[in-house]
Amino acid sequence: MSLRKVFAANVRRLRKAAGLSQEAFADACGLHRTYIGSIERAERNVSIDNIERIAAALRVGGWELLLGPEQLLQSQAR
Amino acid sequence: MSLRKVFAANVRRLRKAAGLSQEAFADACGLHRTYIGSIERAERNVSIDNIERIAAALRVGGWELLLGPEQLLQSQAR
Repeated sequence: MSLRKVFAANVRRLRKAAGLSQEAFADACGLHRTYIGSIERAERNVSIDNIERIAAALRVGGWELLLGPEQLLQSQAR
Repeated sequence: MSLRKVFAANVRRLRKAAGLSQEAFADACGLHRTYIGSIERAERNVSIDNIERIAAALRVGGWELLLGPEQLLQSQAR
């Protein structure tokens, strides 16, 4: 799975877990709603500065947004 | 510490641990030497696709390149 798709899945999962719409989440990040939509569809070659912004809005570390399904399973197994 | 600086420090540390010059490492990534230099100085708003390329060349997960000093200490303590 590409890192774009890993990032997209984690952002969508955590945004929904926070109970936020794409619009409300975009406001929290200071980014545009359509940008968040394109990120969640893995269409965006997102920059590290925006990874940092999105991680801060989700209150997670940037590295957590790049954890693939295997790492997520391992971290849940601990 | 900004995510750019975290990424810069991890790339430099792992590149050196692999015994690679910036030039040899740039070749391995398919990127330009000056680009690698600017990444390691945290001057570059690097994209997720290039994070993926660099992680692959270092044979680590993309998430490992965004681990800050605190997470690195924790992972070494395990």
